[in-house]
Amino acid sequence: MMSTSEANKYWVGFDLGGTKMLATVFDSEFKPMGRKRRKTRGHEGVDFGMNRIVQTIEAALEDAEVPASEILGIGIGCPGPLDLDRGIIMEAPNLGWVNAPVKKALQKAFGCPVVILNDVDAGVYGEYRFGAGKNERCVLGVFPGTGIGGGCIYEGRVLRGKVSSCMEIGHVKVMPGGPRCGCGESGCLEAVASRLAISAQAAQAAARGQAPRLLKAAGSDLSEIRSGALAEAIDAGDVVIEQILREAAHFIGVAAGGLIHILAPDVIVLGGGLVEAMPKLFVSEVETAARDFVLPSFRDSFRVVAAELGDDAGVMGSAAWVRETEYAGNGSSQKIHNTS
Amino acid sequence: MMSTSEANKYWVGFDLGGTKMLATVFDSEFKPMGRKRRKTRGHEGVDFGMNRIVQTIEAALEDAEVPASEILGIGIGCPGPLDLDRGIIMEAPNLGWVNAPVKKALQKAFGCPVVILNDVDAGVYGEYRFGAGKNERCVLGVFPGTGIGGGCIYEGRVLRGKVSSCMEIGHVKVMPGGPRCGCGESGCLEAVASRLAISAQAAQAAARGQAPRLLKAAGSDLSEIRSGALAEAIDAGDVVIEQILREAAHFIGVAAGGLIHILAPDVIVLGGGLVEAMPKLFVSEVETAARDFVLPSFRDSFRVVAAELGDDAGVMGSAAWVRETEYAGNGSSQKIHNTS
Repeated sequence: MMSTSEANKYWVGFDLGGTKMLATVFDSEFKPMGRKRRKTRGHEGVDFGMNRIVQTIEAALEDAEVPASEILGIGIGCPGPLDLDRGIIMEAPNLGWVNAPVKKALQKAFGCPVVILNDVDAGVYGEYRFGAGKNERCVLGVFPGTGIGGGCIYEGRVLRGKVSSCMEIGHVKVMPGGPRCGCGESGCLEAVASRLAISAQAAQAAARGQAPRLLKAAGSDLSEIRSGALAEAIDAGDVVIEQILREAAHFIGVAAGGLIHILAPDVIVLGGGLVEAMPKLFVSEVETAARDFVLPSFRDSFRVVAAELGDDAGVMGSAAWVRETEYAGNGSSQKIHNTS
Repeated sequence: MMSTSEANKYWVGFDLGGTKMLATVFDSEFKPMGRKRRKTRGHEGVDFGMNRIVQTIEAALEDAEVPASEILGIGIGCPGPLDLDRGIIMEAPNLGWVNAPVKKALQKAFGCPVVILNDVDAGVYGEYRFGAGKNERCVLGVFPGTGIGGGCIYEGRVLRGKVSSCMEIGHVKVMPGGPRCGCGESGCLEAVASRLAISAQAAQAAARGQAPRLLKAAGSDLSEIRSGALAEAIDAGDVVIEQILREAAHFIGVAAGGLIHILAPDVIVLGGGLVEAMPKLFVSEVETAARDFVLPSFRDSFRVVAAELGDDAGVMGSAAWVRETEYAGNGSSQKIHNTS
């Protein structure tokens, strides 16, 4: 049994993903005490989803042997767009959800403060607090995945929109007249360098017989061509696959270079499954492209590094973020502004 | 004579421009008490310049009838790049200065806290505190002039670089393969829509006989074609000049649209001489282009407005900024990070 003294209080971090959800219970020093991972099953609908989140947190508390009464707060990283003030997922196409009242459901179940934030912001905040961007003045996170997410922690604050999210690096134009993006425009970074865009090119190479290792391992079905399969194909000698990956990473560096002129980050943290599978390739190509792109005065102003926390970035970041918002007024925290 | 009670303390704001400098003394409510404007005469060198800044502040204090001992702090907006921590103008090409020790010179002369900041940041902060972006959560300022400056105030903080400045909207690429920029690249916003770029196009139109009003009023010399002359030519019926201005403003809107995806500003404040001379044209074109550019979820997330404070934005902003930095810890202030 846990002590109930002031020192033994707990924060819960939650990462709500398109395919899986993860809850982790942290002690006051952010040591993980217990966790639970489950499939999200978004297609079952919002009510089912709210219950499932509650049950997953309950299971993590059980794993940690922590009673719900000792939770100081729950932070939850969600796919957006979000209504941050009201704690609602306004729309999550990946889950098929509209107006999911996350904050209300969790407050009712656990009776503690609940804060939602964008899932990429949660991951970048985790890397800022505990990982590859630890305590840096300005951290820009770029997470290529199905789409390409971005987040920025500036002097301890998560840069966020009031209504919309921000740091939409996936929709920076990097290739005028380039491939069509899901947003309707063309030449967006996401249309050129997301895992989906990379897999589509890799599948073509496989179908053309230019990537025999990939074809053997994963076929030419986009849904089978995941980060691990791409990394293995490169290691096994599929040169064309390596070229495709390097070109995609190059364009991520071009887009990052554009943001360096705007935000002057001290460190750019690259994360997500693709980067985890091929960290050296991504760090090297992004860094080279970004340094080539920027004005001379910015050339030595930043580092490019791979994320360090993997899947834990989101739960650590969201748990640390709810703690920050609960201790507003300590200089590095940030009140949620009301829409007015 | 002023009282010496606690309530009667003063802040000095200073705007160091390429051609003129302006000092203003404010009381504790930021009411202007006295001011002095002089030509900068940067070509006389750094030592001359430091003395001239000191003398201009002394003249403003005299105008305000305030003794130097009652100044709580001096804020000074400077052309960059700057070393914010050490208070040095590292290089100001417009002035021909290298390593100008502004902070040290003013501290020695007045014995009070001195803070330097980027000149555009000072203007945007002024508009955030007292003008067109008053108390907004996120204000993006865009000031087209000889170059095109940008600044962002996010939840009361000036977004700044550690080494380099940031918000280099002038070097956002808006026209692939477009005109050559001073930075060596091509297609930068500054190469397309700065006053210099506009004047060059206007001079061509004048030389071709397509802008008779402008030709009569200002000739075809770039240095004579200033904002007022352009506005008057449009009013007098030079349709081609209006087209040139509208197209430039359109590209400013395209660049601003890109930044909306990154920063999600609530308000975009347009300032500087061109905008002051033609506020309606700029606000309308920038707003239309930005709304066309952004993703649907951002379309109603921002307003575009003209700056309200004119030349006073810089002195008001820098005076308010030194006050903020002196009262660190009140939530909206921001410590200067050490370069480490």
